Amino acid sequence: MGQKALTIKQAHFTMIKIGIAGASGYTGLELIRLLVQHPDVELAVLTSETFQGQNIAEVFPSLNGVVDLKLQPLDDSIVKECEVLFLALPHTTAMAKLPVYLQSGCKVIDLSADYRLKDPKAYPDWYSVTHTHPELLKQAVYGLPELHRESIQSARFIANPGCYPTSVILALAPLLKTEWVDLNSIISDSKSGVSGAGRKPSLTTHFTEANEGVSPYGLAEHRHTPEMEQEISNLAGKPVRVTFSPHLIPMTRGMLSTVYINLNQTLTDEKLVEHYREFYKGESFIRVLNPGKFASSHHVLSSNFCDIGLKVDSRNQRLIITSAIDNLIKGASGQAIQNMNIMLGLDEKTGLMAPGIFP
Amino acid sequence: MGQKALTIKQAHFTMIKIGIAGASGYTGLELIRLLVQHPDVELAVLTSETFQGQNIAEVFPSLNGVVDLKLQPLDDSIVKECEVLFLALPHTTAMAKLPVYLQSGCKVIDLSADYRLKDPKAYPDWYSVTHTHPELLKQAVYGLPELHRESIQSARFIANPGCYPTSVILALAPLLKTEWVDLNSIISDSKSGVSGAGRKPSLTTHFTEANEGVSPYGLAEHRHTPEMEQEISNLAGKPVRVTFSPHLIPMTRGMLSTVYINLNQTLTDEKLVEHYREFYKGESFIRVLNPGKFASSHHVLSSNFCDIGLKVDSRNQRLIITSAIDNLIKGASGQAIQNMNIMLGLDEKTGLMAPGIFP
Amino acid sequence: MGQKALTIKQAHFTMIKIGIAGASGYTGLELIRLLVQHPDVELAVLTSETFQGQNIAEVFPSLNGVVDLKLQPLDDSIVKECEVLFLALPHTTAMAKLPVYLQSGCKVIDLSADYRLKDPKAYPDWYSVTHTHPELLKQAVYGLPELHRESIQSARFIANPGCYPTSVILALAPLLKTEWVDLNSIISDSKSGVSGAGRKPSLTTHFTEANEGVSPYGLAEHRHTPEMEQEISNLAGKPVRVTFSPHLIPMTRGMLSTVYINLNQTLTDEKLVEHYREFYKGESFIRVLNPGKFASSHHVLSSNFCDIGLKVDSRNQRLIITSAIDNLIKGASGQAIQNMNIMLGLDEKTGLMAPGIFP
Amino acid sequence: MGQKALTIKQAHFTMIKIGIAGASGYTGLELIRLLVQHPDVELAVLTSETFQGQNIAEVFPSLNGVVDLKLQPLDDSIVKECEVLFLALPHTTAMAKLPVYLQSGCKVIDLSADYRLKDPKAYPDWYSVTHTHPELLKQAVYGLPELHRESIQSARFIANPGCYPTSVILALAPLLKTEWVDLNSIISDSKSGVSGAGRKPSLTTHFTEANEGVSPYGLAEHRHTPEMEQEISNLAGKPVRVTFSPHLIPMTRGMLSTVYINLNQTLTDEKLVEHYREFYKGESFIRVLNPGKFASSHHVLSSNFCDIGLKVDSRNQRLIITSAIDNLIKGASGQAIQNMNIMLGLDEKTGLMAPGIFP
Repeated sequence: MGQKALTIKQAHFTMIKIGIAGASGYTGLELIRLLVQHPDVELAVLTSETFQGQNIAEVFPSLNGVVDLKLQPLDDSIVKECEVLFLALPHTTAMAKLPVYLQSGCKVIDLSADYRLKDPKAYPDWYSVTHTHPELLKQAVYGLPELHRESIQSARFIANPGCYPTSVILALAPLLKTEWVDLNSIISDSKSGVSGAGRKPSLTTHFTEANEGVSPYGLAEHRHTPEMEQEISNLAGKPVRVTFSPHLIPMTRGMLSTVYINLNQTLTDEKLVEHYREFYKGESFIRVLNPGKFASSHHVLSSNFCDIGLKVDSRNQRLIITSAIDNLIKGASGQAIQNMNIMLGLDEKTGLMAPGIFP
Repeated sequence: MGQKALTIKQAHFTMIKIGIAGASGYTGLELIRLLVQHPDVELAVLTSETFQGQNIAEVFPSLNGVVDLKLQPLDDSIVKECEVLFLALPHTTAMAKLPVYLQSGCKVIDLSADYRLKDPKAYPDWYSVTHTHPELLKQAVYGLPELHRESIQSARFIANPGCYPTSVILALAPLLKTEWVDLNSIISDSKSGVSGAGRKPSLTTHFTEANEGVSPYGLAEHRHTPEMEQEISNLAGKPVRVTFSPHLIPMTRGMLSTVYINLNQTLTDEKLVEHYREFYKGESFIRVLNPGKFASSHHVLSSNFCDIGLKVDSRNQRLIITSAIDNLIKGASGQAIQNMNIMLGLDEKTGLMAPGIFP
Repeated sequence: MGQKALTIKQAHFTMIKIGIAGASGYTGLELIRLLVQHPDVELAVLTSETFQGQNIAEVFPSLNGVVDLKLQPLDDSIVKECEVLFLALPHTTAMAKLPVYLQSGCKVIDLSADYRLKDPKAYPDWYSVTHTHPELLKQAVYGLPELHRESIQSARFIANPGCYPTSVILALAPLLKTEWVDLNSIISDSKSGVSGAGRKPSLTTHFTEANEGVSPYGLAEHRHTPEMEQEISNLAGKPVRVTFSPHLIPMTRGMLSTVYINLNQTLTDEKLVEHYREFYKGESFIRVLNPGKFASSHHVLSSNFCDIGLKVDSRNQRLIITSAIDNLIKGASGQAIQNMNIMLGLDEKTGLMAPGIFP
Repeated sequence: MGQKALTIKQAHFTMIKIGIAGASGYTGLELIRLLVQHPDVELAVLTSETFQGQNIAEVFPSLNGVVDLKLQPLDDSIVKECEVLFLALPHTTAMAKLPVYLQSGCKVIDLSADYRLKDPKAYPDWYSVTHTHPELLKQAVYGLPELHRESIQSARFIANPGCYPTSVILALAPLLKTEWVDLNSIISDSKSGVSGAGRKPSLTTHFTEANEGVSPYGLAEHRHTPEMEQEISNLAGKPVRVTFSPHLIPMTRGMLSTVYINLNQTLTDEKLVEHYREFYKGESFIRVLNPGKFASSHHVLSSNFCDIGLKVDSRNQRLIITSAIDNLIKGASGQAIQNMNIMLGLDEKTGLMAPGIFP
């Protein structure tokens, strides 16, 4: 890191060296942006095939004067230069390389879906690939700290959750061991900003085709479905299915999941809020809103918070849960750093407590 | 109307004279915009309390060179100047005046909710007002032409549907007399552009607070719920309830309802598309999309079309219906003109077949 | 054209047959959208290399139920099927084909820049190509009807103006023969919506990279500069240069040019408005705003109007002209149809008087 | 400040107590957001008339879990509770109170325009008010650190610059003592996001009226003109005037000024970049871009940076300077904190080196 970047962090005896594979995508950029403000780490290696040889600040001029590092091609030797390696690559790109990275002793946090599903058979079904290392699936810890903190502490390899699953699982988790709900009735109608689609231009994400309209996509068939179902089923202790409907919203960032579940009994907003607050007690990044308040993506933008609102539709004995995150932070890079902090024994909140930016 | 406006319509022996009460709001403006392109009518009176005395083209500079009419205060005499009166006023503003307008012999199309609900008791519950003329509720025809065309033909008084109900009722109508669906399971997760909130500035619709975020509002309590339930129950022949969740999307126009309903039996997308196409046969403004296609608000923008997509979530035996309209056209002013055409015995499509504007 | 499309136009003895080469781009789509509402023409041929074999309504679902035509590859024979051929192709794509099209007797309106510049030497300088048919440059009429109506009437071949030049030339034209202004001081700071960049995805037009920011591009070097200078110089009767600065604005459509020119003498807004109104007397699509009003792209959106506002900066004896158009209509396809109307001896306004859509 | 907020800063022997008058506006919120991440200060008092009695996190839910302070009405006693008082109030609201605040020994940073202009006669001309304390105008230091750092160090009272003047003055400062430019030719065509208009709803800032269009306003008459001219004239050593044209852009934040000035001699981009880099040597927040690069508001968003690009229009011997800031940070609250740091003898960059957020 360059001279200027140093000025924003306190001097430190031993800074932990970080590598980011896939630094020229949006989750890579967001890792960089957050890590240069993190007091305990130092960026050591950034990789990009497309922009190799360029300085990262040429690719992202927002980093001018803040980071001064050249982009390298991704090869096996980079693990020698870092203690923690973030994989911010497209799905399946690094799947086959995991054993090499892990053998090096490097801690690995994979932001792709390559190691999120425990069942190897789910990969051909949902990702159209045969998994190259099914034996590693069990070793990968699903990095949702609010549910798996202990496993993360001792993990060497984290499968960082997808953005949609993060918002949906956190919305439902406190209910799954109760008798209050009908587990056959779960629907998540989710809305995402366009950055969730990544940096590769396409007609769908062309400004004029995404702007000023709302479009559903992948209804009942989106790849994040098995990931949600895996975690929800684990928590419930039995197989649970979800109807999942993602929508593309004309905004850059932000995600809102509106989750529907039928109630088996009469419950009030107050009772539910109390229950959720108890469940998420001590969690720094979960904000259970007051009864009658709905979560909005506005208030979590550019923060690592997940806001959860609870509203009973008493006419229909149905619960409506609203769950909002910034898809690139709690839905990706912020959560990855939260996992890193836990793995390294640092305060989990380090570098992540910046409040959301509004407006 | 000025000289230029005349150039866009063919000469006509007797142009029908139109009045618009509330011409300085968005539905008023949209009526004007569409009616100046309608070959059989002539704008005779425009009213506005706020802008009275000003020319409509001063209030809306987009009308410069197209319409040249002064805004008048709304008083009872305006019915003498027109054969059809559109009421594009805030809810309850004109409720008490309906008898006066109707006595004049003028045909009235009311875009507010004042006469949409048949049950007078619903008004205190959902609109916090006691209805001043419950005796007129039966006389008002709910102006959804695809369902009530015959009654509209002979009606003197139309209660023009709300935008959300239009999108939801049209999505569900073909299913309600079948044995295929569980009527206790209906959820509509609806997304609307900000113009649905009207022209009155507020924090919610302040650019910086609506832009770049998605917010739910009125979950399980929105006023459009009883309107949907009334029509759906009528069609089903028994009381049906809906969980209705509106969301504010950072776009000016457009509405998408994603409607969920459980299936009682296995059905394919193809079968459902075929059924919907049969149900809406001959309807000019309903476009049932090919199997596997989802409706998007992009493709109906600035048109009177309603696009409907059908997708079975076969893993969960649940149907996902997507229904898209332009909230100011098929959801308000376009539908009002469609009703006018029917009432006047004109071709229903007159002035309404302009394709959507994209991008 | 399908059955439904017919319903929006009056029966006609002989509909004029139209071809559109490049129907799957935005100017192609806009031609289609406007022409299906035009009472005197019929779409006969649509071409697209990328989408050949598909129905245009599959490519643009907004045309569903309105147009029903298959996309063909562009070959020489299409001129046999149409009386007017619009070329809505990328620059240089059809340059070499013009002689073939013209020999057929077809009237040609070229929306590209291929034949806009009279000086063949300008092409290598500004477009990095050697012109293949310099002998045709003189034959092409620059299709700005407000300045060249007579030549257009008898033309067989129109070079349709660029969007930026349209807004800038119309802003300046009334001044160029006066003694009031310093012709060495012209600056146009222009702002365009993203649709001006076309339909081809790129990083610049990726939603997340264009949204929520304003970017200059091509400062002092944009290809539209020689086109503006050619027309301005012709009107002035001597060589005039322009500093031209385009900016990309996070909106789909619309263009605003803020044009600066030093005054040689004291002038009032009123005097200038009067002069401009006299200059543009009888012009249906030019709206010279009242003194003290500024043009905004909001009020011309989806219309063929050009709004012009005049404001003297009396402290600096400088005139600020604001000129707003819809870049895809008066800046492209609307103007092309205006040219077609003139060439065919139709009322120039036919099919073009729809007021702007607001909001 | 609440418990959680403490966790994001290091323990400190003596935290400096801060008051913010007008905490419920956007510049107030931005001060809060930045100051809770500042290691040396502590929020002690927040005021708001409109929301008094509410917790700031109720007004701005983005602050939930980060700040826990009640809003008080603004009265004279608040100065006793803080060492630095930020005034983030509408123009003229606190003008008359300045002597009281200053007598208390509190350092005051005023984000309004009340004390920016040195000439009391400018207030009736540009702000339609008679200044209540003309004797204090000299005492107020114009808080543009890059130009007035030494005066700021010893100041007790800072008039924090306006957003537009910051972008324009920084763009021009390096040129004003050279012989290279014609000082009679300065034009700034500036583009601002809607947050610059504040939080008070109005038709102009209503989502549907600001979205999808670009509008000029206040051409040649905007209140920021005399502020620019004062500073530019001081630097030039003689009276200089500016033609200033602000435009409203459909985006929440960000500002770009495109500044035009005629050159007296031939100069290259390289020479100018070198000169600007020398002028701004050691400045942490000024990034002079490489020759041929243009500033874009995208790359400074949510940062305190000002990006400056230089481009010679050699055909016209004119320089085009692009200058981009985040209007709420370097254009308001970030710069105010930069001033605070200098006044308090802290490292000027403290709490301000977060890189911009992109996308």
